[in-house]
Amino acid sequence: MLDQIHLLAAVTVLGVLEQAYFFLQVIYARRRFGISPPNISGPPEFERIFRAQVNSSEYFPIFVALLWQAGLFFHQGLAAALGLLYLYSRYCYFMGYRASSSERLAPIYFSTGVLWILVAVSALGLLHFFLSHYTGLNVLRLLAV
Amino acid sequence: MLDQIHLLAAVTVLGVLEQAYFFLQVIYARRRFGISPPNISGPPEFERIFRAQVNSSEYFPIFVALLWQAGLFFHQGLAAALGLLYLYSRYCYFMGYRASSSERLAPIYFSTGVLWILVAVSALGLLHFFLSHYTGLNVLRLLAV
Amino acid sequence: MLDQIHLLAAVTVLGVLEQAYFFLQVIYARRRFGISPPNISGPPEFERIFRAQVNSSEYFPIFVALLWQAGLFFHQGLAAALGLLYLYSRYCYFMGYRASSSERLAPIYFSTGVLWILVAVSALGLLHFFLSHYTGLNVLRLLAV
Repeated sequence: MLDQIHLLAAVTVLGVLEQAYFFLQVIYARRRFGISPPNISGPPEFERIFRAQVNSSEYFPIFVALLWQAGLFFHQGLAAALGLLYLYSRYCYFMGYRASSSERLAPIYFSTGVLWILVAVSALGLLHFFLSHYTGLNVLRLLAV
Repeated sequence: MLDQIHLLAAVTVLGVLEQAYFFLQVIYARRRFGISPPNISGPPEFERIFRAQVNSSEYFPIFVALLWQAGLFFHQGLAAALGLLYLYSRYCYFMGYRASSSERLAPIYFSTGVLWILVAVSALGLLHFFLSHYTGLNVLRLLAV
Repeated sequence: MLDQIHLLAAVTVLGVLEQAYFFLQVIYARRRFGISPPNISGPPEFERIFRAQVNSSEYFPIFVALLWQAGLFFHQGLAAALGLLYLYSRYCYFMGYRASSSERLAPIYFSTGVLWILVAVSALGLLHFFLSHYTGLNVLRLLAV
């Protein structure tokens, strides 16, 4: 069973490491700008880093949920590759947002695009499973004829 | 194996789509009220939509975690049905909160109720598994006698 | 299959209950200090409880993701034990932060330490799986020679 999920698990752990990196950036920014918890407001430079972390944290469970459905119901390798692409675009988003609000836009659009592909891939995989499970219809075999 | 999780996977993807809808509402509200990131304060109309999204994001991983434990250890179909009920009540919560703070209350109580049922169902399923796994005691068979 | 995940599932449900407890503390604090949603600012006593909940919510999906990879790819019992340790340290963190900002520090360092051990355990388990899956190399057997 583990060979059907090992790539998904590896990308998940990599995603956790990326989140850890973002959390550390907020801690460093808190020190640099002298903003102690529970405070969360400060100069725009701080608030951009803070919001970049919060946004990435909000998307993390969504990303993991899609990664695993796409990998289990469509194709593990493709899902893992899309996962790596997502993590890379999240890194670009964080670095862009830290520099300026407008530099977050291109990578956030890209990362959202990757998530929509994961949604489509999951939905296709699930649709295929539902059809063959409940109606006995094997779409892939039909297409191959 | 997939036939034991396909309903859970489908409800999970549906939950992701709902989260995407909430994120879009915040983006539209930012444009309408002219509040650019990293800003998160503004008129109550904006803050209600923003908080509704944040609250839904915080509950999303909790919901998914319960959905899967309830589905794996108790009954997939029941867990998926409760999952759909939760997603529907979250939608009502978002729409209610957008209209006024007090209109969020009824659906949030309802959605919390559904989560507690998922907790109870997960706990019962786990209890049953632990009893039969470690003591060989099959509670369901005992009840049937 | 369920006997390979039942301890992980039980710790996950316990983690959800802890999150529920934190959410309730915020609701009680809102009443005590008279801070109605969507407001999130108030006296430091309120903001500390609020931030403790937000921080715990952000770490919850990360914790669950690591718990399951560590349990699936290394050892379920060890992962579950580390999971219980993490949930306990999160409780201490919440109680400490509620008392004062500085009292959150010791338990947050401890809980982060537990998470890093879960990262290490997951990475080791995955490394071992990748090596034996792709190269046929069984590290554990090599060590035993």
